[in-house]
Order: sequence, then C-alpha cells, then structure tokens
Amino acid sequence: MACCGNCFCCQCCCREGETRTPEELAILGEIQVEEDEILPRKDYESLDYDRCISEPYMEILEGMNSKKTKKYEAVRWMMMFAIGVTVGLVGLFVDFFVRLFSQIKFTLVGQSSAIATLLCSDKGCLPLSLLELLAFNMTFVFIASVLVLIEPVAAGSGIPEIKSYLNGVKIPGIVRLRTFLCKAAGVLFSVAGGLFVGKEGPMIHSGAIVGAGLPQFQSITFKRINFDFPYFRSDRDKRDFVSAGAAAGVAAAFGAPIGGTLFSLEEGCSFWNQGLTWKVLFCSMSATFTLNFFRSGINFNKWGSFQLPGLLNFGEFKCSDGDKNCHLWTAVDLAFFVLMGVVGGLLGALFNCMNKSLAKYRIRHIHPKAKFIRVLESLLVAMVTTVVIFAASILLGECRELSSPTTHNTTLSGSEDINSTIRQFFCTNKTYNDMATLFFNPQEAAIHQLFHQDGTFSPVTLSVFFLLYFLLACWTYGLSVPSGLFVPSLLCGAAFGRLVANILKVKLGMAIYSGTFALIGAAAFLGGVVRMTISLTVILIESTNEITYGLPIMITLMVAKWTGDFFNKGIYDIHIELRGVPLLEWETEAEMDKLTASDIMEPNLTYVYPHTRVQSLVSILRTTVYHAFPVVTENRQNERDFMKGNILVSNNIHFKKSSVVSRAGEQRRRCQSMKSYPSSELRNVCDEHNAAVEPAEEGEDLLQQMLERRYAPYPNLYPDQSPSEEWTMEERFRPLTFHGLILRSQLVNLLIRGVCYAENQSSATQPRLSYAEMTEDYPRYPDIHDLDLALLNPRMIVDVTPYMNPCPYTVSPNTHISQVFNLFRTMGLRHLPVVNAVGEIVGIITRHNLTHEFLVAKLRQHCITI
Amino acid sequence: MACCGNCFCCQCCCREGETRTPEELAILGEIQVEEDEILPRKDYESLDYDRCISEPYMEILEGMNSKKTKKYEAVRWMMMFAIGVTVGLVGLFVDFFVRLFSQIKFTLVGQSSAIATLLCSDKGCLPLSLLELLAFNMTFVFIASVLVLIEPVAAGSGIPEIKSYLNGVKIPGIVRLRTFLCKAAGVLFSVAGGLFVGKEGPMIHSGAIVGAGLPQFQSITFKRINFDFPYFRSDRDKRDFVSAGAAAGVAAAFGAPIGGTLFSLEEGCSFWNQGLTWKVLFCSMSATFTLNFFRSGINFNKWGSFQLPGLLNFGEFKCSDGDKNCHLWTAVDLAFFVLMGVVGGLLGALFNCMNKSLAKYRIRHIHPKAKFIRVLESLLVAMVTTVVIFAASILLGECRELSSPTTHNTTLSGSEDINSTIRQFFCTNKTYNDMATLFFNPQEAAIHQLFHQDGTFSPVTLSVFFLLYFLLACWTYGLSVPSGLFVPSLLCGAAFGRLVANILKVKLGMAIYSGTFALIGAAAFLGGVVRMTISLTVILIESTNEITYGLPIMITLMVAKWTGDFFNKGIYDIHIELRGVPLLEWETEAEMDKLTASDIMEPNLTYVYPHTRVQSLVSILRTTVYHAFPVVTENRQNERDFMKGNILVSNNIHFKKSSVVSRAGEQRRRCQSMKSYPSSELRNVCDEHNAAVEPAEEGEDLLQQMLERRYAPYPNLYPDQSPSEEWTMEERFRPLTFHGLILRSQLVNLLIRGVCYAENQSSATQPRLSYAEMTEDYPRYPDIHDLDLALLNPRMIVDVTPYMNPCPYTVSPNTHISQVFNLFRTMGLRHLPVVNAVGEIVGIITRHNLTHEFLVAKLRQHCITI
Repeated sequence: MACCGNCFCCQCCCREGETRTPEELAILGEIQVEEDEILPRKDYESLDYDRCISEPYMEILEGMNSKKTKKYEAVRWMMMFAIGVTVGLVGLFVDFFVRLFSQIKFTLVGQSSAIATLLCSDKGCLPLSLLELLAFNMTFVFIASVLVLIEPVAAGSGIPEIKSYLNGVKIPGIVRLRTFLCKAAGVLFSVAGGLFVGKEGPMIHSGAIVGAGLPQFQSITFKRINFDFPYFRSDRDKRDFVSAGAAAGVAAAFGAPIGGTLFSLEEGCSFWNQGLTWKVLFCSMSATFTLNFFRSGINFNKWGSFQLPGLLNFGEFKCSDGDKNCHLWTAVDLAFFVLMGVVGGLLGALFNCMNKSLAKYRIRHIHPKAKFIRVLESLLVAMVTTVVIFAASILLGECRELSSPTTHNTTLSGSEDINSTIRQFFCTNKTYNDMATLFFNPQEAAIHQLFHQDGTFSPVTLSVFFLLYFLLACWTYGLSVPSGLFVPSLLCGAAFGRLVANILKVKLGMAIYSGTFALIGAAAFLGGVVRMTISLTVILIESTNEITYGLPIMITLMVAKWTGDFFNKGIYDIHIELRGVPLLEWETEAEMDKLTASDIMEPNLTYVYPHTRVQSLVSILRTTVYHAFPVVTENRQNERDFMKGNILVSNNIHFKKSSVVSRAGEQRRRCQSMKSYPSSELRNVCDEHNAAVEPAEEGEDLLQQMLERRYAPYPNLYPDQSPSEEWTMEERFRPLTFHGLILRSQLVNLLIRGVCYAENQSSATQPRLSYAEMTEDYPRYPDIHDLDLALLNPRMIVDVTPYMNPCPYTVSPNTHISQVFNLFRTMGLRHLPVVNAVGEIVGIITRHNLTHEFLVAKLRQHCITI
Repeated sequence: MACCGNCFCCQCCCREGETRTPEELAILGEIQVEEDEILPRKDYESLDYDRCISEPYMEILEGMNSKKTKKYEAVRWMMMFAIGVTVGLVGLFVDFFVRLFSQIKFTLVGQSSAIATLLCSDKGCLPLSLLELLAFNMTFVFIASVLVLIEPVAAGSGIPEIKSYLNGVKIPGIVRLRTFLCKAAGVLFSVAGGLFVGKEGPMIHSGAIVGAGLPQFQSITFKRINFDFPYFRSDRDKRDFVSAGAAAGVAAAFGAPIGGTLFSLEEGCSFWNQGLTWKVLFCSMSATFTLNFFRSGINFNKWGSFQLPGLLNFGEFKCSDGDKNCHLWTAVDLAFFVLMGVVGGLLGALFNCMNKSLAKYRIRHIHPKAKFIRVLESLLVAMVTTVVIFAASILLGECRELSSPTTHNTTLSGSEDINSTIRQFFCTNKTYNDMATLFFNPQEAAIHQLFHQDGTFSPVTLSVFFLLYFLLACWTYGLSVPSGLFVPSLLCGAAFGRLVANILKVKLGMAIYSGTFALIGAAAFLGGVVRMTISLTVILIESTNEITYGLPIMITLMVAKWTGDFFNKGIYDIHIELRGVPLLEWETEAEMDKLTASDIMEPNLTYVYPHTRVQSLVSILRTTVYHAFPVVTENRQNERDFMKGNILVSNNIHFKKSSVVSRAGEQRRRCQSMKSYPSSELRNVCDEHNAAVEPAEEGEDLLQQMLERRYAPYPNLYPDQSPSEEWTMEERFRPLTFHGLILRSQLVNLLIRGVCYAENQSSATQPRLSYAEMTEDYPRYPDIHDLDLALLNPRMIVDVTPYMNPCPYTVSPNTHISQVFNLFRTMGLRHLPVVNAVGEIVGIITRHNLTHEFLVAKLRQHCITI
C-alpha cells in the first residue's frame, strides 16, 4: 500500500503505451523528473512509531510489572548517558584532529612564508608557500572525498538526512556504522583541507548515528559486533534515541544542550513527551560536559574544571569595564537589526537559489558519470579556494595596526587571547594583514576576530572577504565531502555584520558595539540560509552565553526567515526536496480541509485473509511491493442492511445517511471524476478494465519497479476464486470487513520460520512465535526473495491473526484532511486504514498521500471536478 | 457522558439504600471523600482542542484562501506581541508597587529602630518598632486576604490552576478578568505584607489570564468591555493563547523567555506544534524585554538600554579577576551536588507532606466556616511571621564584619551593590546583623546576599533561618492570599546551600565557591518541592545567565526529583489532587495495556437521533448533565449479518472473529464480572433492573447532583417508544449506528435560536446558523434552564446533522489503553466514541475514564475477574 500511494488511476484507468499530458500525469501522481520540479520519491518509507500490540507483545505485557518497568526505564537512562558521553568523545576526537592537522599545516606554511618574506623581498618565491599549501589542502580533500565514495550518504552536512529521519522517513543507510566512520573521518580532512565547510553538521549526523547504533549493540557493517542485547528493537525506540543523539551532536558542537534539545524538538516534536524531552536534555548535557571536561583537561591541563563549553563558542561579549556608556545594544539598534535581518534573508535566498541550481546541475551532469569525477570536482574546489585566499591576502589585504591588548578579552571561559590568532603575513611588526587574519585561521578563530577584535578591518577587506566566501561556500556545499554549513554561514554573515558596524561607527560616528553587529549579521545570514527558528535562536544565545541577546537574535532570525521564505525554502529543505524525500510539514493549510480522507486514500488494496495459504502469501509478497496488508474478510451484506436499518421508522420522520462509502462506489466516483476532467482520453477507458500487476522481478531496482505501469491482478488467493474479466465493479471490489493490519516483514518472518498449519488440522496447531523472535532481525528483515520455496508446502495455511496489529488507528472516509494529517503525523503512523461506517476497509493512507505535492494535486482535481 | 464516566454500575446494578463495602465502592467508581484520598471530581470538564468540522465551519472554509490565511496568521502574531507587552507591563506594575510598599515600610521601621537604638540602649522601647511593623504587615495582608474573598480562585500561586488548564481541564473562573484583578493587586499586598510568599506564581497566573482574555476582546465581569472582535472563539485558540500568556508570565518573572516557553511546553506539550512554539517564544521575549526596557528606564534612567532582565535574577556568578585558581565548580563538587540533591529531595518531600496535611485540615475545618475565618488565619500568620523574624533577628542574629567591597559585585546587569542591602540592626558600625540581613530585606535581596555576599553568615544563623523559613513558608502556602512558592523555596534552599558551603569551606577547608553551593542548594530544595524538570533547569540557567551551571543544576534537580518522588508528589500536583482535578499524566504505565477501550468506556449512553423532536431534546437536556450526545440511528441487523458474512466459505477454512462488541453484550459482561466479584451482594441484582435518572433540579449544586445516585430512564425521545420494564437486555440496549457527536451547548443554542422545522415540512426548511452564530456566546453558553419553554413548539423537529461533528476520532473496543490514552491526550479530545467493527457506538470515553485512579481501579477489577 505504502509505496504506491497514488497509482490507483493507472491501475484502474490506463493501458500501456498511452501518452498523457503533463497535467494528467500530475493528477495521476506519476513521477516526472521535470526540469523544475522533483516530486517525492515513492520508495521512501515511513518509520513506524505506533506500537503494534499483537499477541506476542501481550505475552511480554503479561509479565510486566512496575519493577520491570523501572528496570527498563533505568536502562534507557543509562543508554542516554552512554550516547551523550560517546557523542562528546566523538566531538573531542574531531576537534582534536582538526586542530592538529590545521596547526601542522599553518605552522609549516607559516614558517616557509616567513622564510619567504626574509629571503625573497621581491615576492619572487611566493609560489613555494602556495604550492606547499596546495599540496596539503588537496591531499586532505582527496582523502575526504575518497571516504565519501566509500559511503555516498556521508556527503554533505547530514542535517537534511537527520531532519528527514526525525520527520519519520526511513532513508536507507543514514544511521549505519560505515556512514559514521566515513563521516567522522571525512570531516576531519575536509575541514583541515581548507575548504569552506564546518564540522557542526557532520557532528550532528554522527551524534544521530551513535544514538541509533549504540542501543542496538550490533552492527550490520561489522557482523562481529553483536552483543545479543535485544532491547530497543523497534522503530519507535530507535527514533527516540536518534533524537537524543542528534541533540547531543548539537550540544557538543555548539555547547548548547538546550538548543540541541530544542533542535530535536523542532524536527521531531510531534512525537514528543515530557519523559523523552528530559532524557534528551540529559543526553545533551552529558555530551556537552564530556567534551568540556576533556577539552579543559587536554587544552589547559585543568582536569576537573569545565571551561570550554562547545566546539564552537563565541567568546564573551562584554564592554570594557571603564566604559560606562557602552551598551552591547540599545533600542535604537533594533531598527538596524531588523534591516540586517531583511538583507540577511535576501542574501540567504540568493545563496539557496544559487546552491539549488548548482545541486541540480550536479544531479544531472556529475552524479551519473564515473565516481572519480566527483573527487576531481572536490579537488578543483580545494585548489581554487587555496589560490583565491592566497591571492586575496597578498593582493587585497591591508596592514592594520594592533590595538593595545585589552583586559576584557581574557575571558573566563578560557578561550585564547584574541590577538594570538592575528596573522602578520608580509606585514611589518605591530601591524597585521586583516585579510589573512580572516582567511588563514580556523574559521572559529576568524569568527572570534570579527566578534571581538578591537582593531579594525577595512571595509574593502570585509566586502571582498564576504563576496569570496559567499561564492566559494556556495560552490562547496554539495560537494562529495562531509561538509557543514553553519560555520561558513556564520563567518560570512559576521563579515557582513562587521561591515555594517564599520559603516555605522566610522562613517556615521554612532556609539555602537561592533561585536554585536557582527553577531547579528552572522545570525541574519545563517537564518536566511537555513531558516531554522526556535532552535537556532537558542543555539546562538547559548553560544554567546548572554541572555540579553535573546531579543535581537530572535527578531533578526524572524525577519530573515520571513524575508527568505518569500523567495524559496531553507537550504536543508531544498536538499531534502532534491532528494525526493516525502517530508510532512507541521500542519496542512486550512484550504486542504475541503478534501476528505476518501479523496486522498489509495483505494486499490492488496489484502490477505485471516487464514491464508502459503502459496497465496508468497504470490502476494512476490508480486507487490506494499509494506503492509490489511487483514480482511469478504462481506456482501453490510451496506444494504445498513441502509435499511438507518431509516427511522417512527412517525413520518425519515433520515438517510447520504451514503456509505464503499469500495466499488469509490472506484466509480473516481472514474466519474476522471471522465469529467476535460483534456483526457482517459474518460473512455474507466469502466472497462481492471489492470494487472506484472510480477516484480527480483534484483530489479525498487524505484524502477514502481515507476513501471503495473497491472494489478486481483490477488490470486484461492484458486477457485480467480477474477473474471466479466465481473462488474461490485464483484471486483467486494466489501471487505477490516480486522487488522500485517506488515510485509511480519509475513516474511512467519513464512521463514514455518509458522503454518495443515489444512486438516486446527489452527491451534500452528507454532507460536515469541516477541523476541518476531523482532530478532530488526532493522533489516529478510526479503521474500531470500525465501527457499522448496522448504514450504504451498497448501499449508498461515493464521496471521495473532501477529497482526488488531486495532490500528483508523479514520472514517469523511474525515477532513487536517484531522487525518494530525493523527498521522502526531502518532507517527505508517499506514492509516480508512474504514467506513459499517466497518469495511475502503482505502489506506500513507505518508505519500499526505505530502504537500500530492494534496495540492488532489485539491486542484477536486476544484475542477466541482 | 462526560461527567458521569463511571456511574454505570450504580445505574445498572444498584438500588438506593444499599450499603457497600469501601472496596466495592472503589470498584463501582463512586466518589468517596475518604480520610486519605480525594478522587477526581466529576464536574471538571475537558477543553475541546479538536476541531469540529461541521457544515457552518465548512462554509467559512469555502471562502478561505491563502490571503485570508495569512491575514489570520498576522493577527495571531500581533496578538502574541500584545500579550507579551501586556504581561511585561503587569510585571512592571507588580514589581514597582511591591518595591514601593516595601521601601516605605522598611524605611519607616528602619528609622524608628535606628531611633530606638539611639534612645533606648536597654532595648526597652523595641516594642515600638515591632508594633509599627506589625501594623504595616497586618494591614497589607488584610487587604490581600479581602481581595481573595472577592474571588476565591485568586488564592495561592495559580500554578496548579494553570497546569490543569494547560492539561486540558476547564476550571471555572480561573481565566476571568476579576481573578486577574484580585490576583495582581492581592499579590502586591501579600508580598509587601512580609509574608513568606513570592510574586512569581501569581505573575504566571496573571500572564495566563491576559493570554486568555486579550484575544477575546470582551469580558464577562465588565459587560461593557466588548469590542465585537469575533476571532479566536474556541477552546483551541484560547488554550494556545493561555500557553503563550503563561510562558510570558514566566519570562517576565524570571527573565527567562526560553524557560517560559519550555514551561508551557512541559505542561501543555502534547498539543504542540512548531508554529505555536515559535509564537510562544516571541510572546515570552516580548514580555521579558518590555519589562527590561521599562525597568532599565525607570530604575536607572537609561531608556533604550536593556539591563535588568527579569523580576528575579540571580546576579552574576564570577570569580574575582585576580584569583586564577578559583572555579565556579569542579568535577569533585558534583558529588556534593548529588548529595545536596538527595537532601533537597528529602526536605522537599517533608515540606510537601506537611503542607498537604495542612491543606487537608484547611479544607475540612476552615473552608466550611465563615469566610472571615480565613482572613483571621492570614492575619495570624502575618503576625507570627513578623514577631518571629523580629525576635530571631534580635535574639539570634550575630554581628559579622563587613567584607571589603570587591569589584566583581558591581555587575554589568546593573543590580544593586550587594552591600547596600545588608542590615545593621543594632550592630555597631562596620558590622552587620546577619539574621536581619536575611529577614529584613525583600526576598530577592536576601537571595542575592546568600549567593554573592563574600562576608560570612554564621552556621547557627543559617540553620535557624532555614528552619524558621521552612516552617513559616509551609504554613503560609495555602492561605487565602495570592502567594507564590518559587522565591521562598529558593531562599530557603539557598540558606541550606550556603550552610553546606560554610561547613565545607570553613570546617573542611575546601576551595569552593560559596555562591555556587547556595545556588545548588536553592535548586535542590526548589526541585524537591515543585518537582519540575526541564523547564526549571532552563529557568535557573537563564536566571544565572551562566550556561556552565547547566550540568550541576540539571543533576541536582534530577536527583531531588527522584528522591522526592519516592515519597510523594510535587506540591503543585498535590494541590491539584486536593482540588480533585482529573489531570492526565504523560503516559499510562505499560501494565495498563492489559485493559482495552471496552473495559474503561462508559457504556450507558444518552443519545439523540439525527432528527429529534424539540420536546425530546428539552427532556434529554434537562434530565442529564452530559456535555455531548452521540447522534445515532437504531439498527438491529448489523451484528447478525456481520457474523454471517465473516465466515469464510471457501474450502474448509473457517474464520470467525471472536465476537463483535455490542452494547447489550457489554452490559451483560459487566454484570457478569460484577457477579463474580466475591464480597458483594450486588451479584444478585444485575439482571433485574435498569435504574432511572432523577431529573436534575435547577439551581442545585452541580457536584451534588452528580453525587446523588441517579436512576437513568431510557430517554423518552418518542412517546410511542417508552421503555418497558419487561424488556430484555437486547431490547434495552439496542444496537446504535453512530453518525456523529453533538455538544450540549450546540443543542441549547439550536433550541434558543429556534432552529427546527414542522413535521409536515421538509428538513430543508430549517433555518441555518452561521459559524459566527454558533460560537457567539463562547465561552459561556446559555443553560437549558434559561430556555423559555413557552416559546417552543414541542412537536417541532430539529435536524442536528448540519451542526454535529460528523467524524470525530473514534477507537475500536479492542484498542489498548496506551493507544486510547495517546490519542485522547495528544489530540486534546473531550469525548472519544468507542465504535465497534460494524459501526455501532458502544460507549464513550472521556477524561474521567482515563485518570490514573480510574485506570488503577479498573485494572484491579480486571485482575480479580480474570
């Protein structure tokens, strides 16, 4: 049901070889890779957040008491702690090696450039330094790029993937150990390689993988890692842990445990509860303070104190003590912040637009080609970046005077003195090259410079820096290397903010605090690019450790988001869209309530009976790609009796419910609406034929299978009930009383474990599976094609009732979309059966029936028909 | 249905005058005001968070387009801003007057005590100062207490009420303008009156009222205030605004906008979405910075700067610059923090236990008496408090030397110098009386002293202070005055923490930072009392403006909560319980899944037909107190046909669904289980009689009505269908096909507006109501008893179908409790119909069927029966 949410029309109305107009195709829900639009892919499945309380689960439950519940809860808390600590250590590892590599690189190149300054006053042997730098950077980037070739999912920041996962979409491979290794190692090299990328996004992804993997105590990549720890083998638990892991990742990256918690909340909130939130905060805190503990120990040799909050922190914003008139910001500044928010939003929209075009270009022209092309592209970017920053520093940098070392920069939080990271770079003593100070530093140090350096940067430098950074960062994001976007955006925005501050302070002579403007600029640009709201606000507040920045940061982010949303989506959403992930928004628009569940459901059902022959099950499983099957019995009487029974007989008052939605009626209605749709030759074919599904071939690409037009046969469950071409709609779509829902994985499991009984025996003789046996293979259940048919007796019968989900949430066909959507999203459902007033199933709703694109198409169709 | 969730047994099985054992009573779900247990009251209703998409709403929807949606959204944002600003101004008002009153009081008394010191060295004329102070305090407290007499809901902190409201319980009067006025004015006087109460709780309550009231643009207290602004007239919108208002209240009180948002999240999260969270944060920020803006302007004459975050802030924790070895806290300290958490939890549990006993005593012995007794009690407490602090300061205070004024206390945030609030109080120059410094200051100043005073407090002083404060605060909370608990708990805990710091530093010579220990002590005690988790952590972090305190605060709060939970609930939950509010927890325990929806539902239904006579409607409305009625048609055929249709005919495979839950079957099962219950003479009465409901009398107390045993007649809808005593169970509980749900308020509205048609006409002639007309009277719909029967023709017929909720969420009778509970709580439902496999309604679940007490009773019964 799940993966073919809207193929109904092709099944009921179309023959092979028909040509259709794009408009028809849109209505039919076919996938079209047009120039401008990428529709959600059908092969992404929902995670299953709802509990399936079947008989094996009830057995577990019978043995449940409050003591066991407490023990289980304690294990959860310990897991959260373990995840937090691990993520903290991962952060430590990444940070340590990035620093080490950068230090080695800059020290060597610095030495040689110092030598160059001494020896070659005519700048003749500059190429030497440049070549050294190039060699370093390109080697590093090469390694990063090769690691991504091993596991392509490790490319990029990982936030789109985590966002999709927390939204409830199962994307293959994103929480695997191999991805983790490639990502964590790759980001070291891409950052050290001088690319304009951050390590925060990959940190968050790594955290999520730790969250997903640690409680499983096994790994698919390394079969050996399997401690036989059977807890938490369900999508529900896994997703909770991934929330915690992602939060811990944010917490470690920004030193922002609350921000991390809110990040998870913002992305996966609909499934939230207090207990989980509390655990996630605990996990985040563990990560922050693990990192803090070790960094304080290693970097300052102050074991036991906690002085270095996160990998990225913004230092302390503080007026010098003597200056009584100094304010970090005043009410007047707010007006400028709003303007900066607007500009940030515009710049962000431009960035996103450019990056989107680039990403599309890559999808079309680079990804189909040989893989090494991607490596070459990465190397090209690395080379250009290196040359540009080198050239810019030499040609465009200005030598500025050092400000006197002020006391307020020796912050309590133990960050290095601001003046230790300035770069002279061919400037004479007591002056520094402002461009080089920004370019030839780790990005975090450059941000610190822009936030806290009392000395000035020339407007030209800032403008050039901004422009170069903007373009190069835009080019870089989307390369086949692990690459975050937070820090580059912050740095880029900080340059913009500092530029504004320069103009206001120097040109207009206003008494403002430059650091605040740099911060607001950073927030504005970052907000314009990523369009995150509450979590970003909190992350930035926590990174500055200054609650009074709350208002300006929030207002700036709000304005930036609104401005940007006017033009396009946030960068992460763009990349999610490009990947065709069927993301569900927070709410549907009010307009969508014109539709009801019966308008959007998938009415063509493949079902199983409570007791089914093995051969039928195998045939169903092999010929369809659905992930769940309703368990039904056939029933031809209900509707008529219902109508009879519902006429009030007393006096002369008559009430007749307009009609009961039945499967046949629904099919007829849909065909009718198809006929009334003007520009289509489909109108003639509706009543004629029931299409048939071609058996899906083994090994074929899943997506391809689904893209092909399919001719669904009435599943041949019982040999004596084969469908006849002569059947009427009523016979073809007989009423089906709904009893439950069973998953493909469960059916395959039953077959593999030989759960069935012989025809001449009672169903009680069927072997029983325990809960542990049902979930043993999580998360990768065996495929139906792995099944050895020779071992099965096709005439045996399987009783699926003990294993099905006997009472999933259901909706009535007249339920409005907002209610359906809320139920589906909030409960984290995977399949939502639509059951009519007499208990018959008439359709199924999955994630694909609720995506924005699908609803819009349906609404358009609805309006045309009416 | 709603308010009689578990009276079914008395209706089906019991006669008047039977005596029952307490055990039976518990099972029967009767309300018993035992010594130790207060069961949830049946007269508290749920708020209705689910949308009812009826025909009038669809009309609105048809006119909806994206432009209107945006306009509507913009109004919401403006409302949020308005609420934030208003709450900020309320905070400003409260703060200003509390300061003013306290200042006047302390100045006058201070002068007279200074004179006393000079004139009466033998301390002979001390009584003069004492009497002055007494006069002030008792006058203030008298005013506060009288204000509460006007509006009794204004007593206490208001957090239990807000918590209940956000949980979805409608408590009469808590969001009314009169409550607001009494609360905001009352808290001024109770704080200024020297009681050990805080103004934070009442601030939060005030904020919530502003949130509820402002978007309505009307007031019931003052009929004149009515701007005819018809937006937001639904429980759903109101509740969202209350969330925002409460968050703004926290934000203003503690300068903690994020904490405020999380507070609302923690209490009302299940209904959350990103858009709302973002608006709530905006509202909180507006409140914080409005307050900040005006306070900075008024107190420091620095208009335009933002220097004073919240009403309560903890000052800046910072080591003096010279001291390189000083750490705010180290890893070693964490061990002490854990221990302090345990002690805090124990102390909190003790506090709660004592306060609970006191509250019960008050309910039993003070509340029933004349109202002035409550005023007298308040005056007594005020007097004792005044005398005690006076005596303690003189007799037990020690004169300590002033520390040299250090620089680090002149914080940037502009709080007053720490030494300006010390009290000499009969001590010679350059020394101060440590007890008086704590007692004769506003509580905020005392907290500052404990957090930041470098000079010491003697252990004896701290112990005595802690003990006195503990006892008096415990006595005070629950008085008939507006009284918060946050600040007293913080102060009390800070004394405890400072005591620990004293012991560690002075006795054991450890290098610790006293302020941190005071803070942790405060957190531990507060955590032990209120047992809040994530929001409290964030509030405290924001109040200290120091992110590095995150870990110790969180660990302390966690340990304190766990320790305390071992003994009893948090103070707010205790008071909620004492009020009998049917609060829903976050989740049910796993054990409860042994029950299904049919076990807990209310199977005795009072229903209406789609077309009903006016006389029947009036009779139903007048004889029942239910708030919603299922709209049904009768149907005797479904079940039999279902059973027939569900037997698979092919081959020899038979499947029979065990049975369809029917109303009659369910009644029989319940009676059966009642019979099998050993110690009951009820076993004989089950099959005999169907009890009858006495008509509820006008004007009688609602609770009393419901407490009375009732004899529900089969509602006499059609004169020719009156129930017969001879009917079998099947006839009495005929199958009812479910069509929708209609609320009492909607029915009354239809009757009052004369929406009906004559018997000889078509139902199309019935007048139509618009959405605005349906919601005009929100939130106080007219009562059925206000209806003038003379104006109605009893033979007319009402067609309720356009106004009913045609597709509410439903569950099947076999659904397990965890799923039912999640659906109910997450969607914010008020009535959840239980519909069987053939579309018949068999029961209704309301909030009262899901309270912990009810579920536990049902589980016990379930276990006995099995």
